Amino acid sequence: MESTATAIAPVRFETRPADYVHWRLVIEPPVARLVMDVQEDRPFRPGYPLKTNSYDLGVDIELADAIQRLRFEHPEVRALVITSGKERLFCSGANIYMLGSSTHAFKVNFCKFTNETRLALEDASRHSGLKSLAAVNGACAGGGYELALACDEILLVDDSSSAVSLPEVSLLAVLPGTGGLTRVTDKRKVRRDRADVFSSLGEGVKGKRAVEWRLVDEAVPLSRFAARVPEKARTLADLSPEKAGPGIVLDALGGTYTDEGIEHRHVRLHIDAAARVAEITVTAPAADEPSDAPGLRKRGGDLWALRAFRELDDVLLDLRFNRPEVGVVVLKTRGDAARVLAADQALAANQDDWFAREVVLHMKAVLRRLDLTARSFLALVDEGSCFAGCLMELALCADRSYMLDKGDGPTLAFSALNLGPLPTWSGTSRLAQRFLGEPGKTDPLLGEAYDAAAALRDGYVTFAPDDIDWEDEVRLAVEERASLSPDALTGMEANLRLAGPETMETKIFGRLSAWQNWIFQRPNAVGEHGALTLYGKPARPKFTWQRT
Amino acid sequence: MESTATAIAPVRFETRPADYVHWRLVIEPPVARLVMDVQEDRPFRPGYPLKTNSYDLGVDIELADAIQRLRFEHPEVRALVITSGKERLFCSGANIYMLGSSTHAFKVNFCKFTNETRLALEDASRHSGLKSLAAVNGACAGGGYELALACDEILLVDDSSSAVSLPEVSLLAVLPGTGGLTRVTDKRKVRRDRADVFSSLGEGVKGKRAVEWRLVDEAVPLSRFAARVPEKARTLADLSPEKAGPGIVLDALGGTYTDEGIEHRHVRLHIDAAARVAEITVTAPAADEPSDAPGLRKRGGDLWALRAFRELDDVLLDLRFNRPEVGVVVLKTRGDAARVLAADQALAANQDDWFAREVVLHMKAVLRRLDLTARSFLALVDEGSCFAGCLMELALCADRSYMLDKGDGPTLAFSALNLGPLPTWSGTSRLAQRFLGEPGKTDPLLGEAYDAAAALRDGYVTFAPDDIDWEDEVRLAVEERASLSPDALTGMEANLRLAGPETMETKIFGRLSAWQNWIFQRPNAVGEHGALTLYGKPARPKFTWQRT
Repeated sequence: MESTATAIAPVRFETRPADYVHWRLVIEPPVARLVMDVQEDRPFRPGYPLKTNSYDLGVDIELADAIQRLRFEHPEVRALVITSGKERLFCSGANIYMLGSSTHAFKVNFCKFTNETRLALEDASRHSGLKSLAAVNGACAGGGYELALACDEILLVDDSSSAVSLPEVSLLAVLPGTGGLTRVTDKRKVRRDRADVFSSLGEGVKGKRAVEWRLVDEAVPLSRFAARVPEKARTLADLSPEKAGPGIVLDALGGTYTDEGIEHRHVRLHIDAAARVAEITVTAPAADEPSDAPGLRKRGGDLWALRAFRELDDVLLDLRFNRPEVGVVVLKTRGDAARVLAADQALAANQDDWFAREVVLHMKAVLRRLDLTARSFLALVDEGSCFAGCLMELALCADRSYMLDKGDGPTLAFSALNLGPLPTWSGTSRLAQRFLGEPGKTDPLLGEAYDAAAALRDGYVTFAPDDIDWEDEVRLAVEERASLSPDALTGMEANLRLAGPETMETKIFGRLSAWQNWIFQRPNAVGEHGALTLYGKPARPKFTWQRT
Repeated sequence: MESTATAIAPVRFETRPADYVHWRLVIEPPVARLVMDVQEDRPFRPGYPLKTNSYDLGVDIELADAIQRLRFEHPEVRALVITSGKERLFCSGANIYMLGSSTHAFKVNFCKFTNETRLALEDASRHSGLKSLAAVNGACAGGGYELALACDEILLVDDSSSAVSLPEVSLLAVLPGTGGLTRVTDKRKVRRDRADVFSSLGEGVKGKRAVEWRLVDEAVPLSRFAARVPEKARTLADLSPEKAGPGIVLDALGGTYTDEGIEHRHVRLHIDAAARVAEITVTAPAADEPSDAPGLRKRGGDLWALRAFRELDDVLLDLRFNRPEVGVVVLKTRGDAARVLAADQALAANQDDWFAREVVLHMKAVLRRLDLTARSFLALVDEGSCFAGCLMELALCADRSYMLDKGDGPTLAFSALNLGPLPTWSGTSRLAQRFLGEPGKTDPLLGEAYDAAAALRDGYVTFAPDDIDWEDEVRLAVEERASLSPDALTGMEANLRLAGPETMETKIFGRLSAWQNWIFQRPNAVGEHGALTLYGKPARPKFTWQRT
């Protein structure tokens, strides 16, 4: 890791099971166990002990890594048990001292990342045949219960003291910020008055009532708990068909990290700090990629489609956490569009193979991460670019796109991946979302090269300046965008990027997170006398009583 | 109007066309024209001139009144033209100096009320056969364009200078807060990259491009504009069947307003300021109500179902604007449940009559106003109560309900109005939303009296304490609720009350408003150097560039 000029070491997201500090990943096919055993004295930043199996970003980075590795490295695993290594304690949620001492921006980004991780768990259940069981072996509060909510089933030990709870409102004057309120009503369909009681009650609900209220699926006496967990896990595993192993290995990305950006094999991030502008360039495969399932699996972690998107993911997380002042991100592509289309075609043709499917699911997740990254994205379809297939999705993700209009200039192209396999959080493809107003619109011709005139005519790009105007128009667009209020842009983009149908996921990021962000600024939570500020201190919070 | 101890005179929402200051309502059946001609020197509060047809709460209270009166008093009107009385100027939106000098709570409540007013326009189009046309005869910015967006069609004068625009982001560092972003993408289905350009471009879009981008329906040269408006209006009117007139009269509610509450004919508000608790008591009809359509219409504005809900509406708005420190609202009913059920039955049986339909639509709107009121509601089904039919909806609106369990104690009852005609903003009945987890659940037996045991068994109330526990349990619930952070409760309730499906309306109140509330607190908008603060002053805003 390179040193940087900033006071705080930058956040890095790569890890591997051998380096896990807080989790143990135990593989016992078809089941895996992920045991949370947080090391109190190993917080991500100095200054707060990670007591009572509470988590911070470091704990969650390991969890995200584990879920990803299970999907790619362990196709033999079809059920995941998430449990705790502590006695009578499942997890007490996000560490409050960490939250209380974090900046607003960090809190918001921390919540976004933890939300994405929990949604990855649900995506794995829905699409990868990896079902999950929360084996709640003790007290389970706040983010701990929200993690359980992200699992397919929740087993609670019925020992007359272990409860599930969401104490955020009553104890901290904030919301359960990792999907809790939304999943309680929309996923578990808890009756809203019960959800109200539950969410405003610090001590939570246990045993039979927790089952009756739909908060958990089963409450099992301690004496039978240890036996019931694997039994349940096995039942969950049996819901999914077996996959043809073995898994592939996710190598470390490496990458060179400097103040000026990141150099990965296929993805490059370059920062112009003075202009507050970043440039992301994704390069097409340099040679032909494998086209059949065995070939794809053999290429494994070195497959362009997997590695390029892992690198893009790393770059997006770097932007979010380490480059807070960058307001505009210019998206570029370089290389041979035909190779991108061929790589897409190989994936699309092999969707009955678990690995090809997993690669596309991963692409989907990275593009969704882009959709949720609070920066303005401008795609530049310039000379040498290859916005084709999965890379064309970058242009569709962008808030706007500019395409150079000149003879023999750049072209766009589409693959089967643009027509459905890479939906936004709203559940529809980016093309469908783009053309909400033209429901009968014909799909683009796959593989066809669209020049600027055709792309403009069919609505695939926003503007197509010619050679003479190109430089000025692009420069002005970037400068103007970078001059606007970052907050207003975040709110605007959060609304415009999620047009059309809403899903539980868009509710979590749109409604719940927006309210939480509001509350994260209110004096009643974060002021001198706020409940979050004073948590664990002898002083009682003092509230301003105005309702808003 | 009674004087109060507060420094600022309380906001009152009753008005009538003869008292309008800023609008002219011209009835020319089947068309009505609502002409905005804002009087610069008559702001709602002293301190800001209402220049360039900008609006404040006073202007919007008149608009809300006009829409309501058209629905009840003018069934002969089937198309409404909204236009401006100023030369080459439609409306420049909410007054910025008013916004800049308002408290956070006022801004939030102002936006909520203006949103509800625009949604009333859309509801009238969808359900009352009152179509609307925005005749945009000049510059149309921000809230002005948002008002146009709430109409069925937008006609823009094509005079090479008149544009529609959303300059909030670029000029003020806030969002278009009256549904603009949501309606651009979800109602008018503007392509998201164009919506992005449009929403970040101060000067807006005019003429042919405005049509091409779906921002308006037609751009008409000035020479043909005056003739085209009535033509279009007539076409819209022809879409709806005629209604059997005449209209009914909405009398002034009167009411006695004091620091301690409000006394209306059927609804009473009582404030316990020290406890920060309010009590709303709705009384059933004191005598039999008419049961056939002519009888209903003859009773008109004195019909219990109309008047009681108008009074309730007034009380809710009073709570929002004039009682900011009240955190908990206890909902009570008194009187004869049989009379409520009979009144409901009369409405349900006459839904082919425009007036009976309008009364139910009004009930729906008031209940939705309750759903969106940022206070905790606890329904108390105590002795003497009559939670039946439309009043049962109050218990279903409440965050929780408590029902006294004793021999010969209170009962609940349902009418046909509980099964669909009063949907929440999510589009489903409160019963359906309540039982999302039990989709096959049987509807309640209409007219049947449910005692506490039956109500608890069937999930219609949250708790049913007996005589011995009742007082303590209710007192504790109210006290505990009132002790929690107002902001956390607002966020929690905004999430739990809108479980299940999402609509354009829930997106406006959930997503858009939540982001706007966040931005309304950010220094980049409202700080010393914020854009909203400095609007119209020589100093340029200074932004903190951190993206969040």
